[in-house]
Amino acid sequence: MKRAELAALIQQKQSFLCVGLDTDPNKLPSHLSKDAAGVLAFNKAIIESTLPFTVSYKLNIAFYEAMGTAGWELLEETINMIPRDQAFIIADAKRGDIGNTAARYAEAFFTTFPCHAVTVNPYMGEDSVTPFLGHEGKWAIVLGLTSNKGANDIELLRLENGKFVFEQAIETIAGYGSDQDLMFVVGATQPEYFERIRKVAPNHFLLIPGVGAQGGQLEDLQPLMTQDVGVLVNSSRKIIYASSGEDFAEAARVEAARMQKAMAGMMD
Amino acid sequence: MKRAELAALIQQKQSFLCVGLDTDPNKLPSHLSKDAAGVLAFNKAIIESTLPFTVSYKLNIAFYEAMGTAGWELLEETINMIPRDQAFIIADAKRGDIGNTAARYAEAFFTTFPCHAVTVNPYMGEDSVTPFLGHEGKWAIVLGLTSNKGANDIELLRLENGKFVFEQAIETIAGYGSDQDLMFVVGATQPEYFERIRKVAPNHFLLIPGVGAQGGQLEDLQPLMTQDVGVLVNSSRKIIYASSGEDFAEAARVEAARMQKAMAGMMD
Repeated sequence: MKRAELAALIQQKQSFLCVGLDTDPNKLPSHLSKDAAGVLAFNKAIIESTLPFTVSYKLNIAFYEAMGTAGWELLEETINMIPRDQAFIIADAKRGDIGNTAARYAEAFFTTFPCHAVTVNPYMGEDSVTPFLGHEGKWAIVLGLTSNKGANDIELLRLENGKFVFEQAIETIAGYGSDQDLMFVVGATQPEYFERIRKVAPNHFLLIPGVGAQGGQLEDLQPLMTQDVGVLVNSSRKIIYASSGEDFAEAARVEAARMQKAMAGMMD
Repeated sequence: MKRAELAALIQQKQSFLCVGLDTDPNKLPSHLSKDAAGVLAFNKAIIESTLPFTVSYKLNIAFYEAMGTAGWELLEETINMIPRDQAFIIADAKRGDIGNTAARYAEAFFTTFPCHAVTVNPYMGEDSVTPFLGHEGKWAIVLGLTSNKGANDIELLRLENGKFVFEQAIETIAGYGSDQDLMFVVGATQPEYFERIRKVAPNHFLLIPGVGAQGGQLEDLQPLMTQDVGVLVNSSRKIIYASSGEDFAEAARVEAARMQKAMAGMMD
């Protein structure tokens, strides 16, 4: 999906919501089996109920990988259930390796499991990111500043040149691609750094976790928005686990619709 | 596998070699089929021929993941072919995510695919590493200073405090575990930084790629060795692709034996 197509989808649905399918078999409603079949039924119902309100689904690969081979079948089936022209599909894999290995990960998530984008870790630098770039309609979403406590350990250290590590990482990696094949992950819980981020990535789309369960506020994200919106805001648990009963899909729909409405208000 | 067991294996085989199973279906000898069955036959022959000379196998997960569900079956079958008491099994996955997601990755590579160790990316800090620690006989092998060109982009930047990013990363992460559940990746191509590395991780085992194809020299690694050796040196392509003919396993055996002999000389 190219940038213009994503932007059109955002306008059409008046939403920049990304629903995170971090589906945990142990958190399924009790009427569903706690296995791959149960997760598939759950994902199907969530996708059907939230599709009008979301422009993207993010699959947290760890949850599928933990189930072994059955999990990878489930991942493939889930991806195939999402209408590819109605939602931007993100493999949240946070892969990062070099050269021919990174090319294999790109093959895995752009071809074998046909997603539009894959999250990538920048620690190893240029040759760990470039194999994901230059594939038309495909995106690398590179970790910038994350929303977790551990962000203080490396990302938020100051370099000799006065910049933060995350800031230099975004600036350097931005130079290897363009805002047509590269996005960055920026946690909603870090508003004091938003201005710095838009200085080094003025027009890149940002994938933003941390709204809701982690404490980030949707309203705080306004300074990050670009002319074509330029942000995708992820919500996982707050939507998919809105109810633990048989009405889980309806409860997810209500929560997704609530977020869509708030987002439409920010797009005026 | 606990540290004392790994150290005993190293003494017994007089080797600290790790054979990288980065098996590419397109590089298989022509008498093998270029699919999962071909890779499995190849891996089986390589493991059988190299086992007397190596203390570890490292599976480059990208190569399996790129084959989709069939690749994960293949990964499982390959892991099950390795005698667990005769080799330390590393999932080279370079995973890195937070909290409950990282716990899922630990489950994937410690339980679902029963490896002894998994490589982990430190960019997101504490909560992306600690879920891999404290599992008896299991190890997180965290990226420190890698052997690729892109290491210059982030790892080798200088911090305000005078340290390099990789150096601070190793020091900080070392504080979250011990030399009984934590190792670091250090590229053989970076000898000028070896002293700094042993200052912040004096007794941790190090996993060292970059000898051979990438230009690192085995002899240069002596300053990194500890009383119980403390290093695992990986070689992938130079061993597994030593010959592209029907004699590939014999050629791999010869190359692994050559490296083992050189290593035995360094252990005197």
